[in-house]
Amino acid sequence: MPEYKAPLRDMRFLLDEVFDFPARYAALGASDATPDMVGAILEEGAKFCEQVLAPLNRSGDEEECRFDNGVVTTPKGFKEAFAQYAEGGWMGLSADAAYGGQGLPHSLGLILSEMVASSNQSWAMYPGLTHGAMSAIHAHGSEEQKQTYLTRMTEGRWTGTMCLTEPHCGTDLGIIKTRAVPRADGSYAISGTKIFISAGEHDMSENIVHLVLAKLPDAPAGTKGISLFIVPKFLPNADGGVGERNALSCGSIEHKMGIKASATCVMNFDEATGFLIGEPNKGLNCMFTMMNHARLGTGMQGLCLGEASYQGAVRYANDRLQMRALTGPKAPDKPADPIIVHPDVRRMLLTMKAFNEGNRALAYFTAQLLDVAHLSEDAAEREEAENLLAFLTPICKAFMTDTGLEATNLGMQVFGGHGYIREWGMEQLVRDCRIAPIYEGTNGIQALDLLGRKVLGSQGKLLRGFTKLIHKFCEAQAEHPQLKAQVAELAALNKEWGELTLKIGQAAMKNPDEVGAASVDYLMYAGYVTLAYFWLRMAVVARQKLDAGEGEAAFYQAKLATCDFYFKRLLPRTASHRAAVEAGSECLMRLEAEHFML
Amino acid sequence: MPEYKAPLRDMRFLLDEVFDFPARYAALGASDATPDMVGAILEEGAKFCEQVLAPLNRSGDEEECRFDNGVVTTPKGFKEAFAQYAEGGWMGLSADAAYGGQGLPHSLGLILSEMVASSNQSWAMYPGLTHGAMSAIHAHGSEEQKQTYLTRMTEGRWTGTMCLTEPHCGTDLGIIKTRAVPRADGSYAISGTKIFISAGEHDMSENIVHLVLAKLPDAPAGTKGISLFIVPKFLPNADGGVGERNALSCGSIEHKMGIKASATCVMNFDEATGFLIGEPNKGLNCMFTMMNHARLGTGMQGLCLGEASYQGAVRYANDRLQMRALTGPKAPDKPADPIIVHPDVRRMLLTMKAFNEGNRALAYFTAQLLDVAHLSEDAAEREEAENLLAFLTPICKAFMTDTGLEATNLGMQVFGGHGYIREWGMEQLVRDCRIAPIYEGTNGIQALDLLGRKVLGSQGKLLRGFTKLIHKFCEAQAEHPQLKAQVAELAALNKEWGELTLKIGQAAMKNPDEVGAASVDYLMYAGYVTLAYFWLRMAVVARQKLDAGEGEAAFYQAKLATCDFYFKRLLPRTASHRAAVEAGSECLMRLEAEHFML
Repeated sequence: MPEYKAPLRDMRFLLDEVFDFPARYAALGASDATPDMVGAILEEGAKFCEQVLAPLNRSGDEEECRFDNGVVTTPKGFKEAFAQYAEGGWMGLSADAAYGGQGLPHSLGLILSEMVASSNQSWAMYPGLTHGAMSAIHAHGSEEQKQTYLTRMTEGRWTGTMCLTEPHCGTDLGIIKTRAVPRADGSYAISGTKIFISAGEHDMSENIVHLVLAKLPDAPAGTKGISLFIVPKFLPNADGGVGERNALSCGSIEHKMGIKASATCVMNFDEATGFLIGEPNKGLNCMFTMMNHARLGTGMQGLCLGEASYQGAVRYANDRLQMRALTGPKAPDKPADPIIVHPDVRRMLLTMKAFNEGNRALAYFTAQLLDVAHLSEDAAEREEAENLLAFLTPICKAFMTDTGLEATNLGMQVFGGHGYIREWGMEQLVRDCRIAPIYEGTNGIQALDLLGRKVLGSQGKLLRGFTKLIHKFCEAQAEHPQLKAQVAELAALNKEWGELTLKIGQAAMKNPDEVGAASVDYLMYAGYVTLAYFWLRMAVVARQKLDAGEGEAAFYQAKLATCDFYFKRLLPRTASHRAAVEAGSECLMRLEAEHFML
Repeated sequence: MPEYKAPLRDMRFLLDEVFDFPARYAALGASDATPDMVGAILEEGAKFCEQVLAPLNRSGDEEECRFDNGVVTTPKGFKEAFAQYAEGGWMGLSADAAYGGQGLPHSLGLILSEMVASSNQSWAMYPGLTHGAMSAIHAHGSEEQKQTYLTRMTEGRWTGTMCLTEPHCGTDLGIIKTRAVPRADGSYAISGTKIFISAGEHDMSENIVHLVLAKLPDAPAGTKGISLFIVPKFLPNADGGVGERNALSCGSIEHKMGIKASATCVMNFDEATGFLIGEPNKGLNCMFTMMNHARLGTGMQGLCLGEASYQGAVRYANDRLQMRALTGPKAPDKPADPIIVHPDVRRMLLTMKAFNEGNRALAYFTAQLLDVAHLSEDAAEREEAENLLAFLTPICKAFMTDTGLEATNLGMQVFGGHGYIREWGMEQLVRDCRIAPIYEGTNGIQALDLLGRKVLGSQGKLLRGFTKLIHKFCEAQAEHPQLKAQVAELAALNKEWGELTLKIGQAAMKNPDEVGAASVDYLMYAGYVTLAYFWLRMAVVARQKLDAGEGEAAFYQAKLATCDFYFKRLLPRTASHRAAVEAGSECLMRLEAEHFML
């Protein structure tokens, strides 16, 4: 397994030097999140991830979760690691102080989660799903529900799940079959089968709090007839402790390509007792309120696994001796040169580096928007942040997971044949990453969300909210002595982005299929331009620091070199995505369904 | 597991309608390969693959090979399937009749192997490696060696391996450590450790014939000091039967990402008896003579697994109901529309289809060149075929496996969450495919072979040999009533290809790193242009058939639709590969090795 070292230097670069988190935290009244506190959290978090979670990653993959008659056993060490995590207060880091949390900003929780998932993606699923359930209860639960569930989840004594998918539907939640029948006591009898329930059953907590989407007997058809219920594994006692076992059970766990130590459960509800959360028939809205957060978190998995893979690949490329450099021996005292001398190995490493660091910038910027949306007292500022967040979320989810998958595949390729062997751990990162473009809304669905709902649905307003930022940045840096050529390139792409959108919008008025035909290539196009913006923002800061003679010159030089690589070798991919977008829907729709297999 | 149906219609389209195999076979004197014979072989081969091999694919992946104290047990059914394969004479299909084979052309063997690998890639490794070893013995072995080994391998009683890689070297065979010490009786004592030996030990045959690269005591350093030896598991008796056990053993088998039912062995040779094959110190040359064949076969794995994935994805996309079409319900009587109505699902399916059918055309064309190189009695024709073969082989190997991997990933994505679950079989295809860009020379090495050795090494001669074909085709079809726009596009790219090559060649004269910096993107660029040529050749034939009212119109219409899709949505990727090539080496080489991890 590649050893994981939390990239604290790069994290601090973004937090302190590029996005000025300290000033933002202060302005938002997050007075506990002082630079010292943030520093201590990152250091301690890194230590826990590197020393406790990372060593369980390979063994967890080999051992997998075990299922026996409704009982799920997680791999060795998982339970103890979770106890230690809870003990350390990590579960409540960004949870509401009113329910026992530390009340730190959400962005900090996301940054911590980066280190967790880079170390051990399977393990990260258990606290990850719990965070999701906590957000929903926090946003929509009654005070009593919060006191009962939230406090215990914050402590890490209880964990949570999200039960949405059913055998016949995942994307299309309007057709779920799980039923909720009201009882005289105000509770509901929940019956149905949910699949793909991460952390649905396991041995890490006293109780599991399922958030279940179901339909009331008289509910309207489709997505407007879905309600959300709390359905705990054990019903709470009068004192809130663990009481009677509820009528739900885990029927089996899935055998998957990756994240094998994450229990993916079939959950059967057989007139289980559930409690309505939020209003009837508004369940999907409740879900949507936390979707940005969850989707950003999923997007970060691409970054996390890409980072883990990069660290392994760089070490291997420096150690492995194979062939001589094309320009003559670089390590003449050795039987061959380390493979990092070869241009194509560097191409692979730099591609990973450029995606990882660019994606990290995108993710942290977006996490900061989450904070503003949650904490700002200025309604206009909140609205602006929410709009940007709505726009960037599908890009984070899809672009970061697709490029993360590319990065993990490249990391594996650097290892040659050894990359295919399980003990090296590089192929596990590919397998663990492969789910990220699928779950939490497939990347195809993200693309429709971006282009259809966000961009065209707002008549371009949400797009302009972001391209305006790019435009202002480009104006401000237009005369930058070293970077003006790249600034001009970004400005041109930013303009082209608007024009391309207009073209699709016009075509879509005549034919709605144009949206679906363009969407995925449009999202990738958007992602490459977005990353170019963040790369240039980083480059401008790096250049300033170098000119001022501050800090470690090599770090800033590496940033500039990677930015240059990104513009020269990755950004040109916009051209092929643009061409694919412009190709329109006809070439997709013309073949009859039954003629695909002739 | 997706059910596999051999795509016989598409195979016949290429064989009979596009490339006119019957005429070629006749011209090459392969008089046994009559259209009737070919038809019967395809039908029977398809039956065997669909009914015997495909059902063992999922179970083989779950069961894996077992290792116990030097003994390797293959999954249930593997041994019996191999016996049936041998019994059916498949092992000797294109083997020399002088040693018991049927003497049919190599192209036919490759086409059969497509069905084998599409059904069960792991199983395909056992006969696949045997074929490789047979080629080497046939080309370089003594008459006695051929009589002893080749006859039994042709019968399928003995199998073969290729032992090249060692723990410290894979690509860089010049630094192997395995030693061969001459003995008084003319044999050699072989000592060393070889890794990643596919089919190195198993229970499917009486004997295993290892072809081992090793160094003689006084051998020159580097690749010019490598010799090739036959090192059988059991030494042949005086009558050629299985005799004494040789001093070699399997130390362990690897735990891999995929092709889990293929035994990947660590082989220890401890003064094992070996027999020189070919001349001393010419071992790598012996290997090179069969490299084109082996690399084409590896390239085809991308096609094979892409095809299997496509078949699964098309069926699922027709069955799975989810959401309504953007243009309104298409199956109003059902709770939702089949997902094949969605443009983005079609984009994924058509991408797979365009790669698979395009790659199949490329592979069959190249297989035909193999026949000419082997069988033609006209030296000029042979040389032309050999040159084209040398040029196209790295493209086949790398482009077909990279695009095959993309195809299998898309097929999995079509399944959404179910794609990640092992029982559906879609993720296995991704895992099984993932080795193909790595082994038999990584795709990075293929790219260096193409650009450095073949294109620049021949001063562009090998490139011109192929672009001339494209040029002639474009001239002939310049006025094609329906396809002239695409013909013009191909002609322009063909011209650009030459110009791009010239630029790299000039840059490389100043700096050899320019070759390595450009190579992978150059190969992908070459692949997309090459596939455009084959797509247009297919389209021209399809158009002719439609105009003539011959055959099934829907089949030809589908060809034209897929060609259109390829030109509009995939061929534009040349633009980003070209830009990456033109970016040059500076942005790759500038970062110090120790600054990759700051």
